[in-house]
Amino acid sequence: MITLYHLDRSRSERIVWLFEELGLPYRLETFLRRPDLYGPEEMRNVHPLGRAPVIRDGDTVLAESGAIVQYVLARHGDGRLEVAPAAPNFARYLYWLHYAEGSLMLQLLREWSVDRMLPDADGHPGMARLREGTRQHLATVDEALRASPYLAGPDFTAADVMMAYPFTTFRREIRPLDLMPFPAIEAWVRRLEARPAFRKATTPA
Amino acid sequence: MITLYHLDRSRSERIVWLFEELGLPYRLETFLRRPDLYGPEEMRNVHPLGRAPVIRDGDTVLAESGAIVQYVLARHGDGRLEVAPAAPNFARYLYWLHYAEGSLMLQLLREWSVDRMLPDADGHPGMARLREGTRQHLATVDEALRASPYLAGPDFTAADVMMAYPFTTFRREIRPLDLMPFPAIEAWVRRLEARPAFRKATTPA
Repeated sequence: MITLYHLDRSRSERIVWLFEELGLPYRLETFLRRPDLYGPEEMRNVHPLGRAPVIRDGDTVLAESGAIVQYVLARHGDGRLEVAPAAPNFARYLYWLHYAEGSLMLQLLREWSVDRMLPDADGHPGMARLREGTRQHLATVDEALRASPYLAGPDFTAADVMMAYPFTTFRREIRPLDLMPFPAIEAWVRRLEARPAFRKATTPA
Repeated sequence: MITLYHLDRSRSERIVWLFEELGLPYRLETFLRRPDLYGPEEMRNVHPLGRAPVIRDGDTVLAESGAIVQYVLARHGDGRLEVAPAAPNFARYLYWLHYAEGSLMLQLLREWSVDRMLPDADGHPGMARLREGTRQHLATVDEALRASPYLAGPDFTAADVMMAYPFTTFRREIRPLDLMPFPAIEAWVRRLEARPAFRKATTPA
């Protein structure tokens, strides 16, 4: 059985949800964020950088949520929640799968770091540029979700699993993000949150 | 033939190099960074966020370097430079493939943003924490490269293609990074730079 080293209110929610979508058995080992939102030091016993999520599958220990999603699907997914290389929407699937961390979270965390640390963030031209960058990012996500109900097309895939976190827990518990100008994102979040596997993954045991 | 919309001194160097490693024909459309290092506005005609790299393969337009690498390998790679799902080092391959942007570039760009914008960055405890985070990240990369010549194991793979950029052009042309404490990273960079495909990719036409 796969063990998931889980940090509350973190990207590792993606992996709990993925396991529920696939109906895979798993064992949770949960860590709680400290008041300053950092993970506890004990997480370094699992991974030298103290990251979450981390999974253990037999002898394999793996961090990085995009890598975990692709590993779990390739080893235990039987083709579910993926888009096959020959399908016309294969590129689109890969784009959102990587974009979630490689661009969107990078943008949001850069903006957040500067905002927290800069004494007069609002008056700084660099801050205005970061905020405008975030707005443009969200506009492209909204546009994609106006064109189709899920990010890779008509069907729910692992790209949606990767992309949800900034718009669910991260936005509500870590760093607020106004979705009012982006109704297609809001509607998509509601569709995701209505999924039985999502509800099961987010209900405290 | 695939078109690569290429920005100089950027992540799109990965894709030129990948094409050279695979011996794939490609057409380059090159943009030059502005003096402030941002890409030119015309890049928005290719992708709404003005990103690089972007490829066009028939009707498919795709950004996000990790996605492009996986797309090109799946559609045109014949199994080269990848690790198969059944192989024991599959997880390791996926880890570094995603870590390159999802963690390392995220860390480096957060640190850089704060460093540029914070008036007294050196005296700020948050800055010290970011710098220590970068050191820890580099230490794990160095440790992996002390254990094997390439990141996924004995063989050169696309994980090395993804991971090189922060240690080659980014470090030399965009944001300095001291590799003195990390000799295994330096030796790996030298191995990569000695590859004929790398040299061909980085030689101006």
